[in-house]
Amino acid sequence: MTALPPGSTIGILGGGQLGRMLALSAAQLGLKCHIFCPEANAPAFDVAAAHTCAAYDDAEALREFAKSSDAVTFEFENIPAEALSLIAETTRLAPGAPSLQKTQDRLVEKTMLTDLGIPVAPFAAVDDLAALKSAVETIGCPAILKTRRFGYDGKGQTRIDENADLDAAFREIGEAPAILEGFVPFECEVSVVLTRGADGKMSAYDLAENDHQNHILKETRVPARVTSQTAAAAKQFAQQIADELGHVGTLAVECFYMGEAAETPLLVNEIAPRVHNSGHWTQNACTVCQFENHIRAVAGWPLGTTERHSNAVMTNLIGHEVDEWETLAGDNCALHLYGKAEARPGRKMGHKTTIRPMK
Amino acid sequence: MTALPPGSTIGILGGGQLGRMLALSAAQLGLKCHIFCPEANAPAFDVAAAHTCAAYDDAEALREFAKSSDAVTFEFENIPAEALSLIAETTRLAPGAPSLQKTQDRLVEKTMLTDLGIPVAPFAAVDDLAALKSAVETIGCPAILKTRRFGYDGKGQTRIDENADLDAAFREIGEAPAILEGFVPFECEVSVVLTRGADGKMSAYDLAENDHQNHILKETRVPARVTSQTAAAAKQFAQQIADELGHVGTLAVECFYMGEAAETPLLVNEIAPRVHNSGHWTQNACTVCQFENHIRAVAGWPLGTTERHSNAVMTNLIGHEVDEWETLAGDNCALHLYGKAEARPGRKMGHKTTIRPMK
Repeated sequence: MTALPPGSTIGILGGGQLGRMLALSAAQLGLKCHIFCPEANAPAFDVAAAHTCAAYDDAEALREFAKSSDAVTFEFENIPAEALSLIAETTRLAPGAPSLQKTQDRLVEKTMLTDLGIPVAPFAAVDDLAALKSAVETIGCPAILKTRRFGYDGKGQTRIDENADLDAAFREIGEAPAILEGFVPFECEVSVVLTRGADGKMSAYDLAENDHQNHILKETRVPARVTSQTAAAAKQFAQQIADELGHVGTLAVECFYMGEAAETPLLVNEIAPRVHNSGHWTQNACTVCQFENHIRAVAGWPLGTTERHSNAVMTNLIGHEVDEWETLAGDNCALHLYGKAEARPGRKMGHKTTIRPMK
Repeated sequence: MTALPPGSTIGILGGGQLGRMLALSAAQLGLKCHIFCPEANAPAFDVAAAHTCAAYDDAEALREFAKSSDAVTFEFENIPAEALSLIAETTRLAPGAPSLQKTQDRLVEKTMLTDLGIPVAPFAAVDDLAALKSAVETIGCPAILKTRRFGYDGKGQTRIDENADLDAAFREIGEAPAILEGFVPFECEVSVVLTRGADGKMSAYDLAENDHQNHILKETRVPARVTSQTAAAAKQFAQQIADELGHVGTLAVECFYMGEAAETPLLVNEIAPRVHNSGHWTQNACTVCQFENHIRAVAGWPLGTTERHSNAVMTNLIGHEVDEWETLAGDNCALHLYGKAEARPGRKMGHKTTIRPMK
């Protein structure tokens, strides 16, 4: 494909912090953005040349948006398939539909991973209570029951221990199609952020180590404390996945790290077919960040370097933690605030990144 | 003064690349921007929450702009004084009027520097042809005749050699009030970029070394190849100047470097009371760049670190050099394009920065 020249317009579905940071990176490259988001006062609206505030099922608005965009991308994966196919009829869409179809549904995702020979935690499909009972027998406890679709930040999942009330657990996740995953005793979570260009070339950032609090990412550290073989294996998995999806853009692969002594040190846990919170450190420790590389891929440009000049610790500012902005601004760190009006509990309001020499 | 909370609006006079990069930094801090610029399709309009396209003598538009802004700043120094005082009546203006009054006029600027005991090249006021003749006798040749006001990128100046036609030279600069400056045999030009906060605290970036082509900055390298004493002296001059102006925001001080053997290794050449092209390298070699620190000062925030994590070379992309954007994007560098529609000769269209480990 031909690279879109500076001055072209990138359409972005979703106007949250990821859309906002994508728009800021597009601006650095001389590209304009058009943000499409159902929420009024979406954070990304303030930094884009144009925006449309409409629902994802508003076909007319989607068509106008697509017409005005030389390429369209998205900031989150739960966009209705109809919206995407409508857009793909009119303009270039990147990542393409398979990146979403194969990652929106946990069962489809795990099946793809298994088919690729990539290790995952034991899992079984759960379509009804009977299937849940049989899955618990096969997989054992503890295990996690997760809806197949629309889960994020710990939503749509519940833990199942010995003698749990399976009926109640299934009701808790809304009796939706689900999977049961065996609970694995991981040492930590690690993630790879990688960008695949329109030409199939790939460039991966160094492996990062993540801590969660209340199912929400709290801190990412780079480099991850794993061997170089394990780090290389994680990148290899991410590349296999990106190729299989024919992905164009940035994606993140989250893995459970089981320790070097384990038979399989890494189990892939989840794929995010988009820029990812665990890649925010690249803004301050790399010359070209995950957002810019995503935009480059979407626009058909050559990818930028993913080399790292520093070690980094990225910390999310969640809910009212952001009220300390003035103190945080005085720390020796990079401060990123998302322009959200209201600091609700659990809401990602910003992040800070501290870098240190690599040595 | 109280720090403006995230969500506040920073008004920016001027919508070129400096205004655009200021707006991108403001966005990172969760601040909104309102750009005021007489030119339609100004580059900064595309990345700001609001913009006003009106002339700098449109009092009504200026008043509305000021009302909508919690603080106002500017991207360039040649803004009519009336516009600024009109704005200062309504909202916080930073930098304040003295930063402009004392730097818009070369004679006033040089006089201030001399009063501060800061070394400058020999100069004399030239108000008419007679004064020019007498100045040439005092200062000698070669010398540079420069208009006192509104000069930039080599405009409004002409070189005077032995036996020059002084009449023609004076006509060439429009017979405007001018100064004659002795030509000094400098080794190179160096510059300091510094930010002074609303509380008077200052933070300076490392000294940079600049190359010009056709009177336009072409390349900036950091660190400058001078002794640490000379680098410290340059920072000291910049701090004296910022304090004298009561400056709030980023400023740049350009110096002639005469070599370590010279009696005065540094002569201050020019003050830019704003973010400056020779500070663009800070975007990629520092955690907090000159644009962000300017916004922090304007908003009354604590300044960010000016520490450098890498060496850097910044190269301007001038005129049609930007047509090579696709090749440049493939280089191992940071690419910054300004979103200008037309690549005219001499026009700054973007820049690229390459970083290297410090060692």
